[in-house]
Amino acid sequence: MNSDLDKPIKIGICGFGTVGGGTLALLQSNGDEISRRLGRNIQVSRIASRSIKISDFDESGIQVATDPFELISDSEVDIVIETLGGFDPAFEVVRQALLNGKHVVTANKALIAERGNELFSVAQDNGVTLSYESSVAGGIPIIKALREGLAANKINWLAGIINGTGNFILTEMADKQRQFDDVLQQAQELGYAEADPTFDVEGIDAAHKLTIMASIAFGIPLQFDKTYTEGISHIKPEDINYAAELGYRIKHLGIARLSDKGVEMRVHPTLISRKQLLANVDGVGNAVMVHGNAVGSTLYSGPGAGAAATASAVVADIIDIARAMEQGITTPIVPALGYRTIHQDLKVVDIEDIESEYYLRIPAKDVVGVMAKISNILQECGISIEAVIQKEVSSDSVPIVILTHRAVEKQMNSAISAIEQLQDIVGTITRIRVETLTENSEA
Amino acid sequence: MNSDLDKPIKIGICGFGTVGGGTLALLQSNGDEISRRLGRNIQVSRIASRSIKISDFDESGIQVATDPFELISDSEVDIVIETLGGFDPAFEVVRQALLNGKHVVTANKALIAERGNELFSVAQDNGVTLSYESSVAGGIPIIKALREGLAANKINWLAGIINGTGNFILTEMADKQRQFDDVLQQAQELGYAEADPTFDVEGIDAAHKLTIMASIAFGIPLQFDKTYTEGISHIKPEDINYAAELGYRIKHLGIARLSDKGVEMRVHPTLISRKQLLANVDGVGNAVMVHGNAVGSTLYSGPGAGAAATASAVVADIIDIARAMEQGITTPIVPALGYRTIHQDLKVVDIEDIESEYYLRIPAKDVVGVMAKISNILQECGISIEAVIQKEVSSDSVPIVILTHRAVEKQMNSAISAIEQLQDIVGTITRIRVETLTENSEA
Repeated sequence: MNSDLDKPIKIGICGFGTVGGGTLALLQSNGDEISRRLGRNIQVSRIASRSIKISDFDESGIQVATDPFELISDSEVDIVIETLGGFDPAFEVVRQALLNGKHVVTANKALIAERGNELFSVAQDNGVTLSYESSVAGGIPIIKALREGLAANKINWLAGIINGTGNFILTEMADKQRQFDDVLQQAQELGYAEADPTFDVEGIDAAHKLTIMASIAFGIPLQFDKTYTEGISHIKPEDINYAAELGYRIKHLGIARLSDKGVEMRVHPTLISRKQLLANVDGVGNAVMVHGNAVGSTLYSGPGAGAAATASAVVADIIDIARAMEQGITTPIVPALGYRTIHQDLKVVDIEDIESEYYLRIPAKDVVGVMAKISNILQECGISIEAVIQKEVSSDSVPIVILTHRAVEKQMNSAISAIEQLQDIVGTITRIRVETLTENSEA
Repeated sequence: MNSDLDKPIKIGICGFGTVGGGTLALLQSNGDEISRRLGRNIQVSRIASRSIKISDFDESGIQVATDPFELISDSEVDIVIETLGGFDPAFEVVRQALLNGKHVVTANKALIAERGNELFSVAQDNGVTLSYESSVAGGIPIIKALREGLAANKINWLAGIINGTGNFILTEMADKQRQFDDVLQQAQELGYAEADPTFDVEGIDAAHKLTIMASIAFGIPLQFDKTYTEGISHIKPEDINYAAELGYRIKHLGIARLSDKGVEMRVHPTLISRKQLLANVDGVGNAVMVHGNAVGSTLYSGPGAGAAATASAVVADIIDIARAMEQGITTPIVPALGYRTIHQDLKVVDIEDIESEYYLRIPAKDVVGVMAKISNILQECGISIEAVIQKEVSSDSVPIVILTHRAVEKQMNSAISAIEQLQDIVGTITRIRVETLTENSEA
């Protein structure tokens, strides 16, 4: 037992934007209840930010300055909260804080996904904890579920709606038959999407989160550069409608799966059965479905962003660290990625080698025999057809919508190239992967 | 750090039914992956059961006997798994094991809900951990989410589908327009329901689970005897249909809420909007929705029963304890109910004092003026009407279905008594509470 139980645990916050501000506000508003849970007070003693008005904190008892490196050198600070975002100076701030023997809590998904391996190693060498619950799916305690709650399982796969902006856009497109660009503009006006929406709609943000979840699900090093990423800007309302007709909804999913070939990590729009709970997660909500070999499928849903929701996860990390400190332990109880012995040998499967079912929308001329030609090409590539929708929409063009059975992506690429070269095809084929998310999904 | 890292952690299992057997099977099948996570092996060294064939374990290296008290006295056993069920001898086995300095993991919801206060106190006095993740919602890590993942929040309310049998029955009734008794019989044939279904369909099992969740959500002592319990046997397919017409589904929910009056704990059939994710959890599935003042609403769903799913939670508890043991800590890192200082003063609200919206199905004669009389009574009791459905179903009887605005239960009871005494009312009124489950639901 620690003899300093009456002494509050001291927090330093680096970066005072949405999440940093939300963390201070939450520690203050819920302070009494948190102390009851913890048996000890948590106190924000320092803030480092370039954008705050120092005089606002004159009577707060909080020491405010601009330099985060000064904060992390303060021997009074027990836990450093990094909410600077980005890599510079966030990486160096976290690294130095760990070297200084501070526990660090970060909400920075890019930092963990791209530089986490180095930082976790520094944390381990220095016997301190680097926590990152808030980096994935905001307020949903999904890191805890994967690293601890489901620790008895071999994880077969997980699939998540992990970008609220993208889910808002797809939901609006579906509900109101609106075009992507139109909804994106509204999302920007509402503050759901950044002025440069690339990170969200092209799946980079989701790929950061998926990379992190895949590492703790399968016990592999973080490998952001091997995560396949595809955005949603090419999805049309008609795809959403055809999907609905076939019993599906289109969601922008991050999918990680362990197959015979290795680990798949991919972010792309996906058709899933409308009967799945995951298909019914709408608007800015996030949700992650996880399939473990013992538990089966569990789903975790809630707000994936916002000051208070994200702060909820940041403060949960603080409480975990504080509960351990209370016992006099400083080294992490749970390994950073949930494993004492990482699988170094599990290789990441190239997107060309994955297997999936596919939705294809093929813009064809309304002439006799085109469907036969398409069928032949698919058959030559070893791909069998599950369902077809063919409807005349204008006098001379008729989109052919095909749902295929399971095929290897490489084969599908060949088939698409060959079909696009047919004379009667009048544009690019839209290809969307289909996931069954059923009990074992082949893994 | 513990110097015995090469020594496996030894487990003794008391009771070898579904959960006990599932736990052994899981520790064996996933042993390699669990050791990778933990950095240490877990080994079942003893089993105590009256119903197993000892010779089956001859070559297993597991010592098998009938007496659980012998097992818990074995100085080689580190963690005792109690899957005996019931109170006798489970209570005494757990108590003695804790007194002997063993950590205990139990799947026994009745034991925790009804005798947990005593047992947690024994555990605390002896510096050991008593874990019970598997006692609520099977494989869903809801205890961990409440005690740790959402620890930064003041919990406003939670609402859960926490009995798979009941949810299966209601789902079948809704999907196939079948009567309760008919589906119950099928559930019994399928093994979803016990020969005596009272525990499941009358809500006692759900009340045990709700009692546990309410204690860790609000930091109050376990008070099973104060949990209001109402079953689903009086629900008719017509109620499900009227509810659907009004935009609702009927689920058997366990609800805990913090209001100005205190803590509400109640299990009863409930109308919830069909747009809620919770309304779409079907079949034997479980799900719990939790509203925290920072995070907002999060939902956790998955299998609430079954050998492997329940064992997933039992083994997660074992891993948590083992991870702490690895650090040389034996006292619980997280307090049993998630709080170092329990709220002893928060009173449980009597069901008569709760506020709710209500669905009423009133069997009335098809005569002029009956609706006016009903409206008058409701108005006199201060209850306003939100919607009415009135359809002729036979020549002389017409059920009147009313959805009310928020009212106090006591007032609703008076209104129902008065209405039932009207000459034109030809039977008992069916009353089902309605929950909005919206962001703040008044709490």
